[in-house]
Amino acid sequence: MVISVFYIFELIGTVAFAISGSMLAIDKRADLFGVLFLGFTTAVGGGIVRDLFLGNIPPKAFTNEIFIIVALFVSLVLFLSVKILKGKYLEKTVMVENINNVFDALGLGAFTVTGMQLAIAAGHGENMLYVLFLGVATGVGGGLIRDVMVKEIPFILRKRIYALASISGGIVYYLLYFNNVNQTVSAVCAISVVFGLRMMATIFKWSLPKAL
Amino acid sequence: MVISVFYIFELIGTVAFAISGSMLAIDKRADLFGVLFLGFTTAVGGGIVRDLFLGNIPPKAFTNEIFIIVALFVSLVLFLSVKILKGKYLEKTVMVENINNVFDALGLGAFTVTGMQLAIAAGHGENMLYVLFLGVATGVGGGLIRDVMVKEIPFILRKRIYALASISGGIVYYLLYFNNVNQTVSAVCAISVVFGLRMMATIFKWSLPKAL
Amino acid sequence: MVISVFYIFELIGTVAFAISGSMLAIDKRADLFGVLFLGFTTAVGGGIVRDLFLGNIPPKAFTNEIFIIVALFVSLVLFLSVKILKGKYLEKTVMVENINNVFDALGLGAFTVTGMQLAIAAGHGENMLYVLFLGVATGVGGGLIRDVMVKEIPFILRKRIYALASISGGIVYYLLYFNNVNQTVSAVCAISVVFGLRMMATIFKWSLPKAL
Repeated sequence: MVISVFYIFELIGTVAFAISGSMLAIDKRADLFGVLFLGFTTAVGGGIVRDLFLGNIPPKAFTNEIFIIVALFVSLVLFLSVKILKGKYLEKTVMVENINNVFDALGLGAFTVTGMQLAIAAGHGENMLYVLFLGVATGVGGGLIRDVMVKEIPFILRKRIYALASISGGIVYYLLYFNNVNQTVSAVCAISVVFGLRMMATIFKWSLPKAL
Repeated sequence: MVISVFYIFELIGTVAFAISGSMLAIDKRADLFGVLFLGFTTAVGGGIVRDLFLGNIPPKAFTNEIFIIVALFVSLVLFLSVKILKGKYLEKTVMVENINNVFDALGLGAFTVTGMQLAIAAGHGENMLYVLFLGVATGVGGGLIRDVMVKEIPFILRKRIYALASISGGIVYYLLYFNNVNQTVSAVCAISVVFGLRMMATIFKWSLPKAL
Repeated sequence: MVISVFYIFELIGTVAFAISGSMLAIDKRADLFGVLFLGFTTAVGGGIVRDLFLGNIPPKAFTNEIFIIVALFVSLVLFLSVKILKGKYLEKTVMVENINNVFDALGLGAFTVTGMQLAIAAGHGENMLYVLFLGVATGVGGGLIRDVMVKEIPFILRKRIYALASISGGIVYYLLYFNNVNQTVSAVCAISVVFGLRMMATIFKWSLPKAL
């Protein structure tokens, strides 16, 4: 049962990041291939980076095709929807942006937790720093690759409380899990923290101090 | 004999990508070191990424120096040629661009096939997705690193039918090879597909549909 | 005793690159998190890349927290100093730039040598190309990641005699070390070469020839 819960988290993250990647590609006027490629890269990129760091060969994305299929399918549906709705889409950009933001926060939380869980399963549980690193890498990795490819300053440096939300949720997961709280409960709490922090930072325009 | 055929494909790819990397560096007014560095990175970058994913340590580029030597030599010759021909070069940019395009298509095909062959040799033959991924990563990896370094939108998102040509050729190779077609024949067919698609896409200005 | 000398080199490199990363983030008007993140990434990024290539899992940065702590602490102190001194800082940019340049050269030398030493310790000593590659990757890797993230053309392509200084020092280290010169002496010579070349290239505005 625990496996199936994590499976659902991974699917949520995959859908969320495929949407955010393909949306950005559409906005940049990429062609069909570019849209599928960026949707795919954003959705599975973080997990592939994590698997490189865990020595998982082949990476998980290539042993269970469901994630690649979902990522490509979501990107294709989005491409077709925008193509058909074109005019209407352009008027609704702000709404789309908001939907995208919500999904992205969900994906960030879900991937942070699944990344940590895989790191723990691989035997790194005692090294909190490394477990956190792999959770955050899984959560922000795909978006980072996406942003570098289209020459945007990465989300991680641009968005309010982004990696910080992932780190905070990660610490919550680590503390709960290693204090014998049920795994699913730990995961839901951690994802809620990531999601809540991202939403509040967006709504209340929270920001950290700057030096200059 | 099979080995020597693949060896030749790898040399072709190395020369082709060293030319494309060092040409771009020259165009960006890089100095001698920058030209050698970008020629080298473009030529061996894709293979190094592939070897990371195969757990090949050290990567192949560092166990057989011939590829590094060829990459640096080609870049140096190009640097000197442009320096000497300067004025004439500037008038012939279009011709150079075309030559470059032809070599790049050849390199893309050759590296896609050698990447897949190494993935199969490492025992991943049954996982078609992963074999394809490693072929495409070898083919487009060096160019991707090159473009990110000089702040260009990567070829893979910019050029007509680029990664798609690599994927198509890869599928052809996989299907032929695992249906008992001779390895060399499979490779030549696959490289022809990649090369043919790239050339036709360039000549006939093929493009995929866009959403916006 | 040898260990402690290398430990000191690594600390010097960590401090130097944390300064250079967080300074750039401050200049780009990043917030507190962005400054800590870029200081951290620049300081430990090269070593993490090297450890991926050595198959060191987890990477060294996550098995000895001292480097992460130092990187974050240095970045935080720099952030606070600039925030407090603000006006004065802006007038002194040139001086700060020079200090930064000196530290960066020291870090480049120190990391080149420690990267090579770890490659040799991992049993790659006979493969000079690979040992050099890992030394240079450790030396320039963090800065390269930093520059790509903030959309700057990488130092390695932009600064005078940068990777070349690292390569030169690396060759010196390799030749001395494998000719039975004491390890610490070899390291100090190599770091001096890197540091000296960088300083002279900066002061005398050395540059390599260009093709165009």
